[in-house]
Amino acid sequence: MSLIVHKYGGTSMGSVERIQNVARRVAKWHAAGHQVVVVPSAMSGETNRLLALAKEISRQPDVREQDMLAATGEQASSALLAMALLAQGVPARSYAGWQVPVTTDSAYTKARIKSIDDTRIRADLEVGRVVIVTGFQGIDDGGNITTLGRGGSDTSAVAVAASLKADECLIYTDVDGVYTTDPRVVPEARRMSVVSFEEMLEMASLGSKVLQIRSVEFAGKYHVPVRVLSSLTDPLVPLEEEMASGTLITFEEDQKMESAVVSGIAFSRDESKITLVAVPDKPGVAYSILGPVAAANIDIDMIVQNQSIRGTTDFSFTVNRNDLVRTQALLNGQILPAVGAREVVVDEKVCKVSIVGIGMRNHVGVASLMFRTLSEEGINIQMISTSEIKTSVVINDKYMELAVRALHKAFGLDQDKSQG
Amino acid sequence: MSLIVHKYGGTSMGSVERIQNVARRVAKWHAAGHQVVVVPSAMSGETNRLLALAKEISRQPDVREQDMLAATGEQASSALLAMALLAQGVPARSYAGWQVPVTTDSAYTKARIKSIDDTRIRADLEVGRVVIVTGFQGIDDGGNITTLGRGGSDTSAVAVAASLKADECLIYTDVDGVYTTDPRVVPEARRMSVVSFEEMLEMASLGSKVLQIRSVEFAGKYHVPVRVLSSLTDPLVPLEEEMASGTLITFEEDQKMESAVVSGIAFSRDESKITLVAVPDKPGVAYSILGPVAAANIDIDMIVQNQSIRGTTDFSFTVNRNDLVRTQALLNGQILPAVGAREVVVDEKVCKVSIVGIGMRNHVGVASLMFRTLSEEGINIQMISTSEIKTSVVINDKYMELAVRALHKAFGLDQDKSQG
Repeated sequence: MSLIVHKYGGTSMGSVERIQNVARRVAKWHAAGHQVVVVPSAMSGETNRLLALAKEISRQPDVREQDMLAATGEQASSALLAMALLAQGVPARSYAGWQVPVTTDSAYTKARIKSIDDTRIRADLEVGRVVIVTGFQGIDDGGNITTLGRGGSDTSAVAVAASLKADECLIYTDVDGVYTTDPRVVPEARRMSVVSFEEMLEMASLGSKVLQIRSVEFAGKYHVPVRVLSSLTDPLVPLEEEMASGTLITFEEDQKMESAVVSGIAFSRDESKITLVAVPDKPGVAYSILGPVAAANIDIDMIVQNQSIRGTTDFSFTVNRNDLVRTQALLNGQILPAVGAREVVVDEKVCKVSIVGIGMRNHVGVASLMFRTLSEEGINIQMISTSEIKTSVVINDKYMELAVRALHKAFGLDQDKSQG
Repeated sequence: MSLIVHKYGGTSMGSVERIQNVARRVAKWHAAGHQVVVVPSAMSGETNRLLALAKEISRQPDVREQDMLAATGEQASSALLAMALLAQGVPARSYAGWQVPVTTDSAYTKARIKSIDDTRIRADLEVGRVVIVTGFQGIDDGGNITTLGRGGSDTSAVAVAASLKADECLIYTDVDGVYTTDPRVVPEARRMSVVSFEEMLEMASLGSKVLQIRSVEFAGKYHVPVRVLSSLTDPLVPLEEEMASGTLITFEEDQKMESAVVSGIAFSRDESKITLVAVPDKPGVAYSILGPVAAANIDIDMIVQNQSIRGTTDFSFTVNRNDLVRTQALLNGQILPAVGAREVVVDEKVCKVSIVGIGMRNHVGVASLMFRTLSEEGINIQMISTSEIKTSVVINDKYMELAVRALHKAFGLDQDKSQG
């Protein structure tokens, strides 16, 4: 008997029929003697519908109330899944985040999980129930409902799996695994049967939408084995077959890893580039600029400070496009006067393209092959950022697909040599 | 400064525009210096949408999960109203039932409120916030979400008003008060400016949809002054004008009451008549029949046991049409064999028509005028039930409108003599 956490995305929960299919799949695991905890997302479209109502009411809805609103989507889908299981004769019970409780900090709309009390879940598992825990949400110390931000259900699932020391966390989604890049952009993209945790972490942070980055961080921190697999297969496919599908995120690099230097190409259009022009070049200026931005809970991604010329410097960084308006307001209203820069220039027509691979550690020249490939396509690089296992560039977003295809080819990902 | 509880029904919360109108009305009260607690229903159609999903999943959805599902409607509308108030510059905060908490028993889908903790509400009122409390829902001792049943938001509002010892509880709805009968059936129906608590209690229990009966019971138990008024007027109408509109439910009979013997005609099509034929007539048989029905949490309304002939009797009672299938199952599966009756006969084509008025206490011949009026219209009476201030009859439902119109006229309610 294993303890398995299942997570189902919005598409998998998108209709009554699909919810019934999820119930069939869960029932199969339950019937095979496993303890199952399920973390469902809201039915697809529901969160958007709710947030659209909020936007109609207020251009900038109060964040506490927005979480109160958005959390209803997962509560409804969880109750529907419990009903579907019960209708199929499987004992089941659903819990909202606050009922578990899943305790978070108070950063509404992007809260972080602090702890999960597993008492209630374990008691239900002991008596043979399937336990359904709403994804995406929790409760803060003040008793307010919080949400974890877009894709937060992945994090909920992995956090629940970590808390329960589950044997595996299965992320059922509308793709059948993690690919070398997005197959919609590069048809030759291949599914990886295994990917290292560190690569997955980079892929997630760089814009691969398969898993939310925090869920990968959680998996890494607590060594939760996570498998990404399709919810669109026949729900009654044999268990062994199901467990051999998808992509396993592994922590055992040496044995299982694929041999490619670069294992995937990630990209994202969710970026905006902001440049403060003519900033006086003196110690502490980076902190004067980025301190208030971080304090406003805005994630800063890439940062580039150009060589100082005549005592001033240009300071560029990227933020998520959703945070652009708030960041601009902060810069113009508070930061610009404080640091004495000349102006704020914004470029929304940028994207980020990254190559990722743990093989890069032991290979030189990987970054230069990337730069050469882009140069051969006539693509100008605006910003560069590197880590041990990834290199990212910011480029004009009209070249995004071209860059991804060229790099996928240049790093040999089109071929089948490393099929796991 | 007064402490006022507002309740808004689903129609009043039915769109973004209407929610913004509710916010304008609440803001007016807040600006006039009053402390305001608002109890909103779900947006109209939302509860039905959710329950339809549940019905698609399961013919008989699990009741715990159904409450988990249905409670999301009020949570969403409460959050939207809070946003609308905040967008209009009014400090506001919404709470789900469990956050207050509103504690109920565990009778899912028709729970009863046990207590309301007003600590959090009072703290917010003290600092000048409008407090929004989700209607319709609570939490049981096991930490499960419960709902109070259809129309339960009225009860929530009155219970909150009772707990806070509010000066008045204003029930804003899509009609402008309580009428002598339904104006859609009798165009001559008049709005009452004042109605006694006891009459309102009978009207509610007899099918007038203006207020849920439990809310009237609560109002009576805690002497909460309740006013029913329209949410469809201009939200910025002067406060004095607003307070003079609608129908006030009063506890001071002698001074304010209208002089009519009968003050209203109530009716309901939500009835089903069930007859157990040829029940052995021995002591305890009524309990053997109705005990298990009550234990299944099914409300029994009228009960008639016919004269015993040759040692057997026919035993009839009415239940809400929604409970008919469950009641039949219970009777045929369990009760019929136990009491040794011959068969169960069901009549769904019935309705109940009632005359209500505290004036009936001191006037004889009121019931006989009712029976004569129906007889003159050729309407056969199937069951009769009386109390100090009401007389109800069960008749074939095709005569309902005819009966209501004839009685409204016979008791002089068409005339304007008792306008308050």
